[in-house]
Amino acid sequence: MNRHYTIKLYCPDKPGVVAAVSQFLAQHGGSITESSQHSDLVCGDFFMRVEVDADTLPYASVSELEKAFSPIAEQFDMTWQVADSAEKKRMVILVSKYDHCLSDILYRWRNQDFEFDIPCVISNHPDLRSFVEWHGIPYFDIDMKSNKAAAFDKIEALYHEHHGDLMVLARFMQILPEAMCERLFGQVINIHHSFLPSFVGAKPYHQAYSRGVKLIGATCHYVTQELDAGPIIDQDVIRVDHSHSVEDMVRLGKDVEKNVLARGLRYHVEDRVLIRENKTVVFDR
Amino acid sequence: MNRHYTIKLYCPDKPGVVAAVSQFLAQHGGSITESSQHSDLVCGDFFMRVEVDADTLPYASVSELEKAFSPIAEQFDMTWQVADSAEKKRMVILVSKYDHCLSDILYRWRNQDFEFDIPCVISNHPDLRSFVEWHGIPYFDIDMKSNKAAAFDKIEALYHEHHGDLMVLARFMQILPEAMCERLFGQVINIHHSFLPSFVGAKPYHQAYSRGVKLIGATCHYVTQELDAGPIIDQDVIRVDHSHSVEDMVRLGKDVEKNVLARGLRYHVEDRVLIRENKTVVFDR
Amino acid sequence: MNRHYTIKLYCPDKPGVVAAVSQFLAQHGGSITESSQHSDLVCGDFFMRVEVDADTLPYASVSELEKAFSPIAEQFDMTWQVADSAEKKRMVILVSKYDHCLSDILYRWRNQDFEFDIPCVISNHPDLRSFVEWHGIPYFDIDMKSNKAAAFDKIEALYHEHHGDLMVLARFMQILPEAMCERLFGQVINIHHSFLPSFVGAKPYHQAYSRGVKLIGATCHYVTQELDAGPIIDQDVIRVDHSHSVEDMVRLGKDVEKNVLARGLRYHVEDRVLIRENKTVVFDR
Amino acid sequence: MNRHYTIKLYCPDKPGVVAAVSQFLAQHGGSITESSQHSDLVCGDFFMRVEVDADTLPYASVSELEKAFSPIAEQFDMTWQVADSAEKKRMVILVSKYDHCLSDILYRWRNQDFEFDIPCVISNHPDLRSFVEWHGIPYFDIDMKSNKAAAFDKIEALYHEHHGDLMVLARFMQILPEAMCERLFGQVINIHHSFLPSFVGAKPYHQAYSRGVKLIGATCHYVTQELDAGPIIDQDVIRVDHSHSVEDMVRLGKDVEKNVLARGLRYHVEDRVLIRENKTVVFDR
Repeated sequence: MNRHYTIKLYCPDKPGVVAAVSQFLAQHGGSITESSQHSDLVCGDFFMRVEVDADTLPYASVSELEKAFSPIAEQFDMTWQVADSAEKKRMVILVSKYDHCLSDILYRWRNQDFEFDIPCVISNHPDLRSFVEWHGIPYFDIDMKSNKAAAFDKIEALYHEHHGDLMVLARFMQILPEAMCERLFGQVINIHHSFLPSFVGAKPYHQAYSRGVKLIGATCHYVTQELDAGPIIDQDVIRVDHSHSVEDMVRLGKDVEKNVLARGLRYHVEDRVLIRENKTVVFDR
Repeated sequence: MNRHYTIKLYCPDKPGVVAAVSQFLAQHGGSITESSQHSDLVCGDFFMRVEVDADTLPYASVSELEKAFSPIAEQFDMTWQVADSAEKKRMVILVSKYDHCLSDILYRWRNQDFEFDIPCVISNHPDLRSFVEWHGIPYFDIDMKSNKAAAFDKIEALYHEHHGDLMVLARFMQILPEAMCERLFGQVINIHHSFLPSFVGAKPYHQAYSRGVKLIGATCHYVTQELDAGPIIDQDVIRVDHSHSVEDMVRLGKDVEKNVLARGLRYHVEDRVLIRENKTVVFDR
Repeated sequence: MNRHYTIKLYCPDKPGVVAAVSQFLAQHGGSITESSQHSDLVCGDFFMRVEVDADTLPYASVSELEKAFSPIAEQFDMTWQVADSAEKKRMVILVSKYDHCLSDILYRWRNQDFEFDIPCVISNHPDLRSFVEWHGIPYFDIDMKSNKAAAFDKIEALYHEHHGDLMVLARFMQILPEAMCERLFGQVINIHHSFLPSFVGAKPYHQAYSRGVKLIGATCHYVTQELDAGPIIDQDVIRVDHSHSVEDMVRLGKDVEKNVLARGLRYHVEDRVLIRENKTVVFDR
Repeated sequence: MNRHYTIKLYCPDKPGVVAAVSQFLAQHGGSITESSQHSDLVCGDFFMRVEVDADTLPYASVSELEKAFSPIAEQFDMTWQVADSAEKKRMVILVSKYDHCLSDILYRWRNQDFEFDIPCVISNHPDLRSFVEWHGIPYFDIDMKSNKAAAFDKIEALYHEHHGDLMVLARFMQILPEAMCERLFGQVINIHHSFLPSFVGAKPYHQAYSRGVKLIGATCHYVTQELDAGPIIDQDVIRVDHSHSVEDMVRLGKDVEKNVLARGLRYHVEDRVLIRENKTVVFDR
């Protein structure tokens, strides 16, 4: 795919927003490759995402485009962002011992299933070092037991040292400190192994088994201070029945978890997600 | 399909149960048309369901078969039931104003999608009388406002007068008295318009909209004293996104609700469901 | 929902299309309630659909809006159409003996699941007269056996007499004459009971059973001269296994057929479908 | 899970089969952990699969159990097989350059998602050597261009040298010689990247794109002489629309392919599949 800029925005809905944005692009010869809009009749906001072929615009960088676009953004009181597909997002992965999500992300990175970089992987266990390092990716093994606060400081420092854009909790099994959630809001994505809001917290497959549900699921969401309550990006389910033990659910659930997480990460990395309060607008395709 | 007997049972699991049951049937020439088993390693119980061609057995009625089978049932300490496909289940339907589930059930009854009778429909509104009566089915319009306790007594009386085997809350929108739930346990099936245990109680689509979930669902379950907490028979979901208003969810959800309810009713009516504590074993196909 | 105009168009893709359309709407104060675009990189065409609140525009009718818009349409060489939500589409339903699709459409009409009228139902059997007439809808029972050509002339005449906008083959089980397909192209929608292009023609469930597939499906498509080969609007599938007989597949398939047909009809009726050669662009939601 | 024997059989259906099998197991104290049956009313055959805890039976090996069971098998004219869970199936994987299926299988092997061994991987390209060898699995890179017949002889020889039980075409992109298909019937599983019988042969996603289907799929099947026409084990689909290019379909399809193949392999490896003529009975769970 050609290099493109992606403009994401939302603002109070009124006539003329689309006209202003598309006029701006058209008068500079900008070729739109994908465009999506949404008018939310409840909150009264208008959401938009436009992908433009970068070579058709006279702006060499995101900041040049931002400078040119900002008068329109101000006029309509937009919350907005511009991204350049040439600058790959840098995804720092946190993992514990379960490696189904990590393996899946590494496979997608090797195969350029979608575009992103992995500057490092951080874990509270040494188990996955060899597999990660085979990929030429640095692996940091952090002791979470003796001093949890210090460990999280270390993690946050590593994230910044590696210029992370996105922190992925790929079944990390540890709860992030509230302050860290606040500081990194919109940059931390978790995969929870239940169909939220059902079965918040620990051992959701055990909870699902006890309740006798006929579908189990997984939820990919942004992390907030409140456990498993942040804005949901994607969810999916798989059918189970009486014949499935908790162990079977764990096994079947892994396939759902990794697929839901991969979809959510792609949406984020391709700048398809807009967060507004505790909900997301996802211009998927 | 030929007339058949269905034997459902569960008992403590030990070697010889299947042998005893199948031996009993084989020695009388019984031709098995469908058979399912399940060994639950957690609770230690064994569950079984056998369909036998009634004409191949020397028993003219359920009670004759029961009499012949009871020594085996006692030997293995079985909880068991025998049903005769010639005796159609009598389904009393309770409905409010929404008629998507009722319409669907009436369609399946007209078309013999599966086998059951509808001795009457009971509602707290007069709206659906004409449609129900077109089918030649009696319609009772009960006032729930002035005296709710008396109204429920009336409903329970109608159910018994019409020799109901099954009471279906097809979006009835009224909570049954606890004592009635207890008396009719295993005979009352409800469709709840959410993916339980998410969004118990009133206005689940509004709850789903507020939480920003990406799938909405429906759950068919046996009614117990605790609201929306009874044994689940079936569930399903449908994908939604930011573009769906609560009204869209209500509209899309209707299709899920009626399909899930229809599946659950078929499983019950064909004696495919075994209830054990708060969970079901469903030998579907 | 408020009265709205829907503009559907496609044209060779070049910068300025969106700007021109949105500028046109904005300068008259038109409030856009829904907007979708698609750039097809293979055929080089751009597709667009815009819903505008009719009361915010100074045009009292479709023809006034068309007149004002036509200069833009000409400039960009658009294939285009305008619809007014106040003018409900008139759906003439053709049916044989199977009534699952008919029942479902009548239910959606009674409940205003989406907006359309049914001026009449036409069948080659008398069976469904009473059910249709209960709805206050005229029912025509046409003899297809003695003179098929004359029967189809009669059908086409009835369609025009009743000012039909859309002819629905709701499991009609008769093949339309080629010339009629040509005359009514884009106005005739069929539901085929297989996942096309698998199992074209007669008895698709028998074909599916013989092949031993693990999913069966249904396809909603526009009718063209070539049997079951027209532009596909929607499709869906349901899981089956070795335990399902052809009769089971027929039963399970009915639920898929009616849901797929209902979705396809809603897309068409809400002007969400653009046909280009043998494919569709469906701006669903 | 404890070591268990699995008995798979089919025979002409008549009263007494289940009784005979279960009696045989019960009289030796065999504890049944899973049991499934199917009576096929069309072909008249009865299919059965029983898992028995190996330690509860007095037979130390498959051959001892076979010897004891063979009188019953003969009496009922059974086609039958016994497997021992302690003898892991040996899966030889053939792969070309696409590694999504290979990566997924290797992940499941590393994580014991289900039980099997991989004695070697064979490819017509060198690309995946390093990734396979990191797992400690031998990798054979065979030249298919100069002499295809000799190459296939080499592959078959490697398969036998490594005591393969199962040959997996994990997107191998080469058509096996007919004679080899015949010799290895029931031992070769292929993943085809379409929902068969749609889009047989080369470039199915291109075919799907041209036809404008709204779902794409994948099919896992046993390989026979006729291309893509062997007994189907499992299938699945994923939704696409006009916005998806062929490249998008390829990307989305990979996730379906690997999941369908993994399910099919698990069913085979756990002895859940019975082949009868060109169809399968899959006792999944």
